[in-house]
Amino acid sequence: MKKTITWVKPTWEMPHIIRGIENLKNIDSNKTLTCLTWARPSWRLHLWHYVWALSNWIQLQETSNIKTNFLIADYQVLWDHLGETEKLRNSVIDMVIDWLAVWLDPNKSNFIVQSYVPEFAELFNYLTMFVPYSLATNNPTLKDEMKKIEKRWETESNSISLGFINYPVSQVADIMLLGWEIVPVWEDQIPHIELSRKVIKKVNTMYSTNFPIPKALVSEFPRLVWIDGNDKMSKSLGNTIYLTSTLKEITSQVNKMYTDPGKTSIESKWNISKHVAFLYLDIFYKDKTHLDELKKRYIEWWPNSVWDWEIKKLLINVLEEFISPIRERREYYLKHMDIVVNSIEKWSANARIEWQKLIETLKKSMWLLDYWKEYL
Amino acid sequence: MKKTITWVKPTWEMPHIIRGIENLKNIDSNKTLTCLTWARPSWRLHLWHYVWALSNWIQLQETSNIKTNFLIADYQVLWDHLGETEKLRNSVIDMVIDWLAVWLDPNKSNFIVQSYVPEFAELFNYLTMFVPYSLATNNPTLKDEMKKIEKRWETESNSISLGFINYPVSQVADIMLLGWEIVPVWEDQIPHIELSRKVIKKVNTMYSTNFPIPKALVSEFPRLVWIDGNDKMSKSLGNTIYLTSTLKEITSQVNKMYTDPGKTSIESKWNISKHVAFLYLDIFYKDKTHLDELKKRYIEWWPNSVWDWEIKKLLINVLEEFISPIRERREYYLKHMDIVVNSIEKWSANARIEWQKLIETLKKSMWLLDYWKEYL
Repeated sequence: MKKTITWVKPTWEMPHIIRGIENLKNIDSNKTLTCLTWARPSWRLHLWHYVWALSNWIQLQETSNIKTNFLIADYQVLWDHLGETEKLRNSVIDMVIDWLAVWLDPNKSNFIVQSYVPEFAELFNYLTMFVPYSLATNNPTLKDEMKKIEKRWETESNSISLGFINYPVSQVADIMLLGWEIVPVWEDQIPHIELSRKVIKKVNTMYSTNFPIPKALVSEFPRLVWIDGNDKMSKSLGNTIYLTSTLKEITSQVNKMYTDPGKTSIESKWNISKHVAFLYLDIFYKDKTHLDELKKRYIEWWPNSVWDWEIKKLLINVLEEFISPIRERREYYLKHMDIVVNSIEKWSANARIEWQKLIETLKKSMWLLDYWKEYL
Repeated sequence: MKKTITWVKPTWEMPHIIRGIENLKNIDSNKTLTCLTWARPSWRLHLWHYVWALSNWIQLQETSNIKTNFLIADYQVLWDHLGETEKLRNSVIDMVIDWLAVWLDPNKSNFIVQSYVPEFAELFNYLTMFVPYSLATNNPTLKDEMKKIEKRWETESNSISLGFINYPVSQVADIMLLGWEIVPVWEDQIPHIELSRKVIKKVNTMYSTNFPIPKALVSEFPRLVWIDGNDKMSKSLGNTIYLTSTLKEITSQVNKMYTDPGKTSIESKWNISKHVAFLYLDIFYKDKTHLDELKKRYIEWWPNSVWDWEIKKLLINVLEEFISPIRERREYYLKHMDIVVNSIEKWSANARIEWQKLIETLKKSMWLLDYWKEYL
């Protein structure tokens, strides 16, 4: 019998979950909060990434009492793409360029590549000692992801790695080193934050340390579907629009967009809630008055109605207006790779010094460092 | 139903198992072999440690074409003694003093403390990506040890840590960094070497590296029982003789030794195969002619026979002769802690430089290092 994994969905009242960036102010406005976000550099950024994550990150970066760390989690690609690390190196560079292109600013935020900072591995190694095996493997998000990977690999002679089983604890190390107070996550990643809180509390209790306990920042995101109306991305279907798309590519993708199924029969009622082009306009078109007018006209009969091609033409313009500056900035950074490389190198190196201190604190508290000096 | 863990006992013919130090010569006498041994610093060394391990280590250290590394595996104590690290620091120092006292020589061998070398953690982290979860958890030695820990913790509110599940892979990292060709192990640790071979071969195949594949060195050890005739050590029974014992302690322990059960009844046949004092004399008394004579007399009738107290008196002298120089050297090092501390610090620091190179080789092969230089 198939067993469904369930977990108690946290409510608004749970004190370790903050809903909406605007509620950050309620925590402590006099103090600078450190915030971690991370991304696996395994694919090119697309519109979903922007809507769901990047737009929020920019907002966090521009909030005065928040210090933002952006982690390029390349370890996390090794779990299930071990044989493809040659591709990975391009993904890392690509992701940093994308980040710079959407106005993430290395002068305001830290860009850190995980594999450049051995301290992640060292801290992770210590944390594995604090986490019961049962707690580590009963994580509902981990179980869901294991199922997905197993499905993907059904026809391949591959299997889940030990590294994958370790990853929630590896993320606790990320959070301890980088994140501290605030970690923006999806709703389904809240169990990771809860694990982090448990583990860090245990460290603090056992060794009288004072490492901050993180809180989850969950934001409400507008619902965005893929261009074919599916809510699953598919690389083979090419059903997405990348942040690097040219006007030609935008045009081609918008023209492929699934429109109202109701409009196929003349009797059926127009239903624009599933009209992909309108869904995109909802998010990216700033002139809401005009948009409302178009929606009203769309469900009218000819000659008052607007055609799908008109809606799509508008969307093409709107998206081009949105993407073209990103594309231009991307072009710029491709010609100035020194900025890209410096952003990574500078921060990864700076960060190490700070984190070595943190690990020293932990090791000293655990009597693992310099203790023999007292024997001399 | 209780399920017994079995594994195919390797035979002499298995090419990755060398039986007896004397057979090392058959491998490659023109080349210097690197050899790793390790110990968990969780208890004081006693006679068993000497007979089973240290005497062999000394032999390896004194073999001209073998370079020996002695690892103080303090990570491995954290799995199941996390709350007791304050004790651990004394155990580390104690173990190094014991090693020096039994003629392990920091000028000939490397003494390395695991927690002083973050490279272990970094390499371990990468290796977890190469090991299928199923392979990691199906290790028979791991399963046996899990049972033991679970039994020990039955009455405690504790459980097996994720760190424990990771430890076979953590040992692969130890072996990759330190051990290379030869790893002396007990018979029941052979699965660890087999796992190491699998993992290192996989790394070599996937990333065209050339890391050496280790071989197990299994030696035949004389059978030694505890002073109460049990083959299990018991701290509560105090049934062992430490390498630090005073003459008074040796006397007290030898006097407690279990003697021939056959001698309790006058009709029964003498059976010296279970006479603990004779078992110890077999190993530590050099005058085998005299020993044979004593054994013959022991099963004679009075007045030819020898009494238990005579056998025990001889053993006390033999053990005192064996332990007293170790005790003296121990006293010496306790007064010269700088030698002890320098032995650890020097080698742990030196080793890091060498291993950073090794990890760089791995990371470069995996396209994880310095790749962006080519974008400039």
